[in-house]
Amino acid sequence: MKKRMLFFLLTALFIVAIGPVSLADEGMYPISELHKLNLKAKGLEMDLKDLYNPNGVSLMDGICKVGGATGSFVSADGLILTNHHVAYGGVSRASSEEHDYLQNGFLAKDRSGEIQARGYTVRITESYKDVSKQVLKAVKKEMSAAERTKAIEQKIKEIEADAEKKYEGKSAQVSEMFRGKTYVLFIYTTLRDIRLVYVPPRAIGNFGGEEDNWMWPRHTGDFSYLRAYVAPDGSSAGYSEDNVPYHPKSHLKVAPDGVNEGDFVFILGYPGRTYRHQTSHYLEYEETYRMPFVADYYEWQITALEDLGKDDRGIALKLASRIKGLSNTMKNYRGKLQGMRRMHLVEKKRDEERKLQQYIDADNKRREKYGSLLAELNNLYTKSMADFESDMVLSYLPRSSSLLSTASTLYTASLELKKDDMERQSGFMERNWNRTKQGMLRGTGEFYEPSDRLIFEDILLRAARLPADQRLEAVTEIVGDGDPAEAVHLFVDHVYSSSKLADRDALEAALEDPAAWVESSDDPFLKLARELYPVFEARREENRERSGEMDKLYAELLDVKREFMATDFIPDANSTLRFTFGRIKGYSPRDAVYCDPLTTVNGVLEKTTGEEPFDTPQKLQDLIRKKDFGRFAHPELKTVPTAILYDMDTTGGNSGSPVLNARGELVGINFDRAWEATINDYAWSPDYSRSIAVDIRYVLWVTQKFAGAGYLLTEMGVEE
Amino acid sequence: MKKRMLFFLLTALFIVAIGPVSLADEGMYPISELHKLNLKAKGLEMDLKDLYNPNGVSLMDGICKVGGATGSFVSADGLILTNHHVAYGGVSRASSEEHDYLQNGFLAKDRSGEIQARGYTVRITESYKDVSKQVLKAVKKEMSAAERTKAIEQKIKEIEADAEKKYEGKSAQVSEMFRGKTYVLFIYTTLRDIRLVYVPPRAIGNFGGEEDNWMWPRHTGDFSYLRAYVAPDGSSAGYSEDNVPYHPKSHLKVAPDGVNEGDFVFILGYPGRTYRHQTSHYLEYEETYRMPFVADYYEWQITALEDLGKDDRGIALKLASRIKGLSNTMKNYRGKLQGMRRMHLVEKKRDEERKLQQYIDADNKRREKYGSLLAELNNLYTKSMADFESDMVLSYLPRSSSLLSTASTLYTASLELKKDDMERQSGFMERNWNRTKQGMLRGTGEFYEPSDRLIFEDILLRAARLPADQRLEAVTEIVGDGDPAEAVHLFVDHVYSSSKLADRDALEAALEDPAAWVESSDDPFLKLARELYPVFEARREENRERSGEMDKLYAELLDVKREFMATDFIPDANSTLRFTFGRIKGYSPRDAVYCDPLTTVNGVLEKTTGEEPFDTPQKLQDLIRKKDFGRFAHPELKTVPTAILYDMDTTGGNSGSPVLNARGELVGINFDRAWEATINDYAWSPDYSRSIAVDIRYVLWVTQKFAGAGYLLTEMGVEE
Repeated sequence: MKKRMLFFLLTALFIVAIGPVSLADEGMYPISELHKLNLKAKGLEMDLKDLYNPNGVSLMDGICKVGGATGSFVSADGLILTNHHVAYGGVSRASSEEHDYLQNGFLAKDRSGEIQARGYTVRITESYKDVSKQVLKAVKKEMSAAERTKAIEQKIKEIEADAEKKYEGKSAQVSEMFRGKTYVLFIYTTLRDIRLVYVPPRAIGNFGGEEDNWMWPRHTGDFSYLRAYVAPDGSSAGYSEDNVPYHPKSHLKVAPDGVNEGDFVFILGYPGRTYRHQTSHYLEYEETYRMPFVADYYEWQITALEDLGKDDRGIALKLASRIKGLSNTMKNYRGKLQGMRRMHLVEKKRDEERKLQQYIDADNKRREKYGSLLAELNNLYTKSMADFESDMVLSYLPRSSSLLSTASTLYTASLELKKDDMERQSGFMERNWNRTKQGMLRGTGEFYEPSDRLIFEDILLRAARLPADQRLEAVTEIVGDGDPAEAVHLFVDHVYSSSKLADRDALEAALEDPAAWVESSDDPFLKLARELYPVFEARREENRERSGEMDKLYAELLDVKREFMATDFIPDANSTLRFTFGRIKGYSPRDAVYCDPLTTVNGVLEKTTGEEPFDTPQKLQDLIRKKDFGRFAHPELKTVPTAILYDMDTTGGNSGSPVLNARGELVGINFDRAWEATINDYAWSPDYSRSIAVDIRYVLWVTQKFAGAGYLLTEMGVEE
Repeated sequence: MKKRMLFFLLTALFIVAIGPVSLADEGMYPISELHKLNLKAKGLEMDLKDLYNPNGVSLMDGICKVGGATGSFVSADGLILTNHHVAYGGVSRASSEEHDYLQNGFLAKDRSGEIQARGYTVRITESYKDVSKQVLKAVKKEMSAAERTKAIEQKIKEIEADAEKKYEGKSAQVSEMFRGKTYVLFIYTTLRDIRLVYVPPRAIGNFGGEEDNWMWPRHTGDFSYLRAYVAPDGSSAGYSEDNVPYHPKSHLKVAPDGVNEGDFVFILGYPGRTYRHQTSHYLEYEETYRMPFVADYYEWQITALEDLGKDDRGIALKLASRIKGLSNTMKNYRGKLQGMRRMHLVEKKRDEERKLQQYIDADNKRREKYGSLLAELNNLYTKSMADFESDMVLSYLPRSSSLLSTASTLYTASLELKKDDMERQSGFMERNWNRTKQGMLRGTGEFYEPSDRLIFEDILLRAARLPADQRLEAVTEIVGDGDPAEAVHLFVDHVYSSSKLADRDALEAALEDPAAWVESSDDPFLKLARELYPVFEARREENRERSGEMDKLYAELLDVKREFMATDFIPDANSTLRFTFGRIKGYSPRDAVYCDPLTTVNGVLEKTTGEEPFDTPQKLQDLIRKKDFGRFAHPELKTVPTAILYDMDTTGGNSGSPVLNARGELVGINFDRAWEATINDYAWSPDYSRSIAVDIRYVLWVTQKFAGAGYLLTEMGVEE
């Protein structure tokens, strides 16, 4: 009953906000918009209420958020299918030199053998409600931009706290849909005992590695099986031996026959972030300043970290997850940069803005209201460009060393925990403080001093070399009059050799009472954290100010654009549940090249060199050569498809999302985009925007024939 | 009349040798085989006698050999179309920092502006004749293998000398068609005054550089125009201002409308070398030993040479041609290695040989005659594998330093010139000695000490580090008891600082009378050359021995294979005139990828980054954007095609070959193969063997619109 009310409220909002929805395939639609899409005409062969039903159980209840990505329940006993790379962190934490699950894979022979995926939670969207009015009521006319931001932050915390009181055992989160304009409260069930069931070896799950990442044609078996557990009474609980498998309200039916070129498909998932409503100056800032800097900076880190691990598998394992993350972003940025240039994106945006400005200027009233809007917005980005260098250094400095970061959190905690709960920064509120602590303690297990120092020393040296007027006092103090490189090196030597913060027990004790620890400790990172605190507090305040100005301007921009274009928009992705649809479809990435939308295991053999990342296990090679395909061969191709390509609109966070056929059956697990589609974050292109899933036939075939885990197929109701 | 006789003789030979010719597209057919191919049924729309007519003028007379590659006459005034990379050496030699034709291109505004392409000759095949019986008559039963080789070499020299006496002003050359079995005498007209007419800038002619080399899809404008000149009386002559354009017997008609997918095409050209008749052990030696070594060695050289030229365009220009050659081979080898593995070539050959051995063993008489044949052949390759390391070092040592090479040639000349002409090594015979000297003198212009030393020092050090029993005495002497690296470095310092051989005048004087120079000179390279002479003389003798044994065995292998397979073979390519035919055809290089057989100028823009090798001239970009295509736009694609792909059988040496349509009109200039077709040298694959030409429409469009040389179109009879 509650849910129905929420649904109507939200629907009302979006009817106003979206109006006539475009027929194109672009769009990560909020669930509330589905009824406007006439999906049956597009190819959907199921009733919309079986897809989403706020009054009952539907397919949507089988979708979950796994960390920052997506998964789906595929059995009544909480079995989850997601990506190998989504489970990666958990596998990495469970691995040791002795039990190298990352390298060799992991298979639980039965449920008792399922091991914890530490640090993993799974969320299920229960309901949502538009709270824009409530949020914006907190804003008063006389407020400064910073005050405005602060007031909104505060109001959101209140709404979330109220909701969590109301829905016991659930998590509440308010998400901004249109900047400075619309806010939606989401209620989630959060499961905290997640376990590994089957993870293929690296040479299947990450076949092609960084070389193939962001590429089509693809042959990566990027899938893993997890299982969610709950307390015996069905409530969400942390890991315990007594826990039992979770029974989702609904789970997806797997379609062992897969799809074909041209088939209608759709995705439900949690896309992270897109920036399609930002201005040309934002894009220019990204293209000219931020992305090239970050890509180069990460590339340097990758090389440095790989070097540290090159002779020691144990160290390599410790650094693997981090390197993978850095590489992924680095290559994504390079792809985006290429795409932006190729599509002349900044030029196009500028052109749109010129036209909008003409429209604004054509009417006196409009000009009065919106005349300087674009100029003001762009002005804010121009400032960012001017301060770019110090901005980058200062934004990376606090997170460069995990010990500095720990000390900063402890110091902040000593101040925040004294405040009333609702006044605190989010991570220190009672509802979150425990999770914050657990995360920090888990961090000690991943700490590796040489890499930590290396990256800290580098950024500190960059900070030391900033122009005098931008340099931090704390850094000036470290350097003194000497040679910056030498001084920084000595300082780093000193702080790492005398800090105790890498020690789990010491940290645990400090976390018991941060204020007491701050009072008594002489840890050198605490000293630095204390000195930096006011600086970064001031930066936060500045950001609030900037953000407040932007929120206001972007809200106005949306109004005038809506008026000008007499159409409406889909909100940018923001890690909330979205729907996208399209077709299984090839594309032409460049002159004279066409790529089919299905790859096959033949390509696995073709790419296999025997050397990482193309070192297909011998058993898999043999199965392919013997054509031991069971029921999973494609009837015309006579071989097992490995991956599928489609023109749906996805972004990061859609990793692990189920790809569903017209009847809502699982035919693939989304895991990547084609190189040309890295640009999706900024713009959609019907020619180039293609996303990639591992084909369900490959998933099932590997599970059955390679892993010998036919019992998982049985659990999913797939006949062999 | 003479020609007709020769033709009949040769035809008779091949009727025996070839029998029923395969219908597949594999095959670089000798001209004499054309009448067996039923080319009209395949798609040819012209009379065979217009293609090749030993009794009169035909299309074939319009084809020429340009250096080691191919070209075609496209006007009555000796205008030649060939590749940019074929003309590269000439352009490089004509370039200076001031006039950087390599970078900026070269256009002669009229004939008086056409400049010399130094070092270039052009050959036209006049006739040929089977001389196998004559050659093999020189072989006596009692001869050792080395004596056999020597006798054949000697006989060939006699036949060539006789022929040159008979056909005044012509060059004669005997080519081995089937190893140890068939020999053909070719009579050539050789033109020696070749000039540059139009060469596009590097950014068109070598667009994509090494990155795109051996790749499809391609967008390289790899073409150049040359012109052949002769003495006013029409005879062949070296460069002179008095010379006049050569009037070829025949020239090709250019087809400005080009071709389409599926069209019949053929090529006439001078493919260099293929190895399709070699055994599995040869392939194994190539795959496991020689090619990986050479690819790595060349890669090292490329890096070292690029490093030398990185800050100085003048030096970079000097080294450009060499780097280009090294890169080309290196990448070709890498492609072949991949192809060999992917096609399991060695395994396939072994399998064929197993079957052949079974056939041999099944009959007592056959076993007696051929039973040990394969074992003996393979045994010879196994020996090569055992001596591999020293073999490689010793084969690269004499050519590692151009000064050592010069000294060795002078020393050898001092011995050879004393002998009777017919007893001399070929380069020192009267008919060749002048050319040898000219080449050496030209070499001084290309000498660059730092690169010469670098490569010499490296190989000398490798020689010094060979196991003691394989080390040369001369090298042991250099090293003494000290540290090899240090000793070699000192030695190299010494020889380069005291040698005079890099000086053109000094060399010219020495070449006047090599014996006198050897008598009086104390050049340190002469000392080394003298010490090395007996060693390399012994190696030559060993090679003769090995080669003699192989010739004999391969001749027998051909006999028994012919018997076993009841079919016949096309001889391997050997730089003689060949014919191949096929269709304009795309291909699938790998799983889920299909490549069209036509690229367009759209791809030029797509690839353009503004940075070498993708730095398209602004003018060309503007022409493309303005769609200023003149008559050269493809009627359906609405844009200018840049390159075409086809399934003809080509190899190195086919560079610059005309691609001709069914009516024998020029539609493209062959310049490369797809990556997967680097394997052509060892095996033919209907799936992967694809070659690449620049599309005539792109050639003509660039000539007209970009270069503004419409007068060349007029000369070729192309209406604008």
